[in-house]
Amino acid sequence: MRYGVLGTGIVGAAIASRLVALGHEVKMGSRAAGNEKAVAWAADAGTSASEGSFADAASFGEIVFNCTSGSGSVDALESAGADNLRSKILIDVANPLDFSGGMPPTLFVSNTDSLGERIQRALPEVRVVKALNTMNCEVMVAPEMIAGDHTAFICGDDEAAKARVRELLGEFGWPSQRVIDLGGIEAARGTEMFLPLWLRLMAAEGSGRFNIGLLTAADPEAG
Amino acid sequence: MRYGVLGTGIVGAAIASRLVALGHEVKMGSRAAGNEKAVAWAADAGTSASEGSFADAASFGEIVFNCTSGSGSVDALESAGADNLRSKILIDVANPLDFSGGMPPTLFVSNTDSLGERIQRALPEVRVVKALNTMNCEVMVAPEMIAGDHTAFICGDDEAAKARVRELLGEFGWPSQRVIDLGGIEAARGTEMFLPLWLRLMAAEGSGRFNIGLLTAADPEAG
Repeated sequence: MRYGVLGTGIVGAAIASRLVALGHEVKMGSRAAGNEKAVAWAADAGTSASEGSFADAASFGEIVFNCTSGSGSVDALESAGADNLRSKILIDVANPLDFSGGMPPTLFVSNTDSLGERIQRALPEVRVVKALNTMNCEVMVAPEMIAGDHTAFICGDDEAAKARVRELLGEFGWPSQRVIDLGGIEAARGTEMFLPLWLRLMAAEGSGRFNIGLLTAADPEAG
Repeated sequence: MRYGVLGTGIVGAAIASRLVALGHEVKMGSRAAGNEKAVAWAADAGTSASEGSFADAASFGEIVFNCTSGSGSVDALESAGADNLRSKILIDVANPLDFSGGMPPTLFVSNTDSLGERIQRALPEVRVVKALNTMNCEVMVAPEMIAGDHTAFICGDDEAAKARVRELLGEFGWPSQRVIDLGGIEAARGTEMFLPLWLRLMAAEGSGRFNIGLLTAADPEAG
């Protein structure tokens, strides 16, 4: 498969490298082709890896990841171009973090709206699936690093797109029963609003190498 | 110990009944003494159980639980009286849920403030500890009903108060290592903002009988 990965930060690099390792072709996109980090990543990642503009990466990918910073995501996707993304699955990994007030960041959209919904509204013909935004990027692509049955969430309005993302998460190492479908893209409010707790857990743990697991009743027949 | 439990809903009843079962004396408080649900609870719960006004319950308790609905909590606590609560531990279990827009509820305060912080500001001489607000009330008082190592969170500005709440959670059945201290009362933003995800998990699971567990690296020495 061909994937576009928008964003050259640690999240984009982690996703892009994992996709290449799985045998896919990946083009990393940034605001302008020739971005220093993207060029370095592509040179390091081998012949299946390339780089270009947001539009280049969106055009290249059969599936596209949004790994840009939340504050720049809508602009980046508009720069990528609705025509280049039309009907494609866009896996939105970004979070609407606002660092302007210092640490820990707050959210620049929450509660009655979400970044996932904003992206879906900005690009109504794109099949947005929010996924993996509730964890560190190391955990996203190597879930086996965490001990125990921990959980990933997906949401979006297109059922077939969510089924396809579930398969891809399986390639990353996520058993299907640990990928929880929360419903439509509106549920992105839930996963994005987890970030304030995640940030405090990171501070308490002194590491981002953790995840949450969904644990259910010891005896489902009881009560 | 003597406990005051403010609130006559299912959360207040679950907490109050558990405290009585543990051998404590409990006064359930409501807006006015003689509340029908509080009278019925006290009649059913035995000689260690009583009821009265918010002020009666606050005065009675050496430790006080806030189990009122989030939208009424600050009013309820002001009605309970700063003098009756002064220097006491107030365990705030409430969430700032706003049902005015239908289901699922949104939060009436979030992101840059929290209900826990509002309560602490309204009652600066009370030692507020936010706890247990990230789960169903059945799970709060009977953690053994969930299989696996699931997690409770506490936060607050008074270290001794948090240590005392950790002991009480131990009485409820929470091993200390599964009670995570997130820091000052400002961290209530994190646990309260978990509710939108909790609500969607409840919808996906078809039950509130679940909790999240914090899972960490399989090999803490790696990387």
